[in-house]
Amino acid sequence: MNSRTEEILRQIPKAVRWENAELFLLDQTQLPVDVVEERQESVEQVWDSIKQLKVRGAPAIGIAGAYGLIVAMRSHLQESPASYREALQKHASYLDSARPTAVNLHWALQRLLACAERHSTLSVEALHRTLTREAEEIHREDIELCHGMGRSGKGLIQEGMGVLTHCNAGSLATSELGTATAPMYLAHAEGVRFRVFADETRPLLQGARLTSWELQRSGIDVTLITDNMAAVMMSQGLIHLVIVGTDRVAANGDVANKIGTLGVAILARHFGIPFYVACPSSTIDMHTPTGAEIVIEERDADEVRHFGQRLTAPHDIPVRNPAFDVTPNALVSGLITESGILQAPYEQSLRQHMNA
Amino acid sequence: MNSRTEEILRQIPKAVRWENAELFLLDQTQLPVDVVEERQESVEQVWDSIKQLKVRGAPAIGIAGAYGLIVAMRSHLQESPASYREALQKHASYLDSARPTAVNLHWALQRLLACAERHSTLSVEALHRTLTREAEEIHREDIELCHGMGRSGKGLIQEGMGVLTHCNAGSLATSELGTATAPMYLAHAEGVRFRVFADETRPLLQGARLTSWELQRSGIDVTLITDNMAAVMMSQGLIHLVIVGTDRVAANGDVANKIGTLGVAILARHFGIPFYVACPSSTIDMHTPTGAEIVIEERDADEVRHFGQRLTAPHDIPVRNPAFDVTPNALVSGLITESGILQAPYEQSLRQHMNA
Repeated sequence: MNSRTEEILRQIPKAVRWENAELFLLDQTQLPVDVVEERQESVEQVWDSIKQLKVRGAPAIGIAGAYGLIVAMRSHLQESPASYREALQKHASYLDSARPTAVNLHWALQRLLACAERHSTLSVEALHRTLTREAEEIHREDIELCHGMGRSGKGLIQEGMGVLTHCNAGSLATSELGTATAPMYLAHAEGVRFRVFADETRPLLQGARLTSWELQRSGIDVTLITDNMAAVMMSQGLIHLVIVGTDRVAANGDVANKIGTLGVAILARHFGIPFYVACPSSTIDMHTPTGAEIVIEERDADEVRHFGQRLTAPHDIPVRNPAFDVTPNALVSGLITESGILQAPYEQSLRQHMNA
Repeated sequence: MNSRTEEILRQIPKAVRWENAELFLLDQTQLPVDVVEERQESVEQVWDSIKQLKVRGAPAIGIAGAYGLIVAMRSHLQESPASYREALQKHASYLDSARPTAVNLHWALQRLLACAERHSTLSVEALHRTLTREAEEIHREDIELCHGMGRSGKGLIQEGMGVLTHCNAGSLATSELGTATAPMYLAHAEGVRFRVFADETRPLLQGARLTSWELQRSGIDVTLITDNMAAVMMSQGLIHLVIVGTDRVAANGDVANKIGTLGVAILARHFGIPFYVACPSSTIDMHTPTGAEIVIEERDADEVRHFGQRLTAPHDIPVRNPAFDVTPNALVSGLITESGILQAPYEQSLRQHMNA
């Protein structure tokens, strides 16, 4: 990577920063109006930041949780090894309770506890150093995953293309580069000129609030549209490629992602536009045979009835509010992983990828 | 029509009411939070109501404008015929300036002026009575059109169906019953049980604010969804029919309608769901050969950057905001007119219909 590329990549906003053993979280609830990075002074503050969605996106939450545990343990460095280990357990459970359904948070905290188990004979000081390195390793591994997806997918983006994305599978949801956005950031850093169209992504507007902000901030040419404008943009020949993220990929390649993804995939098929899904291996679930087995969470009706605090529909109107939808594998042109792009038939390519 | 049916139809909210020679307009800018009907005391008030979109929807604006001119002329009943006629011209131009692009407003006002021309020998009192009857006739004709579309389309709606609609082509946009909603209201009045899914319709949320409100108010089972949920509702088998309105139908059957309609049509085709368009003859434009000749208005970027008054995206983010899109005739299952449903080939069926 040359220095110009590195300079461009440095401009990409980061959800989580770890610098001189201090944890900084970007308060994403204030975006895009205010850009506020908060130093995390205590475990209670980290818990709050996770709870209030100041930090969101599965990988970013995991990384913040791991560093949050290190922050928590700073005040136990003068204690006995037994007391330090007891506090470690206590703070890990506490942090885990901030978002009980966040798999990555639980996974990262468990990984630090397992690390402590493996090093049962170390002094408190040495153990704290080892745990810090483990948290940094969790962070580094996510950076590697994102860069891997970026390298796998950047060749899809050619000079002059229009690229549509949905929701925020961006830098703000991960360590850096994001998942769906990783190919965009690397292509941009290498000087490819293209335009991104960002769906605003109702009801919570992650596309408007987060994706359009982070891409603009990074110098990428980005245009915001409402979700229902994707079809006319495609019909006008402005979109040549779709890249989205995913919450879970089933063993047959069916893709669960933010509500609205299925519609985008169908429109892309109608107009003959390739539809790609960026998926780190951590989102591939070989224990779920097909998308039919994925239970779709229904969220609070008031998210649809309101915008922010403002009521925009009858207060008692019946609402459907599925948080995500499932795109069948037949509509997926390819799965962008950290080690290459998988093609159909996905049962086979996913099995090979996960066994590699 | 039996009395139970009539009772049900009486519950449907009306945008414009004319009662004992008084004009009442429902303030649609306050819906759905407050339901306020305002008696129009002066021509200035009517102008304001049109300007501020308290009354909207092409047919409703035309009717309000015609009655508005009658309201204006009440204070000229003691004047000479020449003076009355001069005031008529002046108030008509004034009202016309409230929304210069509203074709129906201009058409309705011109029709009253032409009526005055035809009755050049009448006394002021008799002329005022004649003009009042002409305004009432404009109103009555729109009611007939809406009921005609309702009769043409109601057979499409069967017991137990899910019907999707987009934007507000409802009673609130017309005299009563609406265009896309007319088949729904008549089927409902006849006791057919079905569920309507209303797209919220970003950026201005006419579906959330208006359609869901007027259908709920009328006792129809209605569920509000964000625009990007239509695909998953279809994939779950909940939608069996789509009916939308239109701003303009080209001579070949291409349909211009609120942004997002094209996407709904493509999704419906993907899932094999019939897609119908309600179009009174006034929206059929035989001078526009195809949809390619329809210029798409681009609206203010801040509609997409904001939700109501609240900024929800970077303040300077580039935006696309086309007000409508064009659905090609190949995706249209039928055109619901006041005298029956037209089928493809539309060049032929539209020509026959307009010559009948």
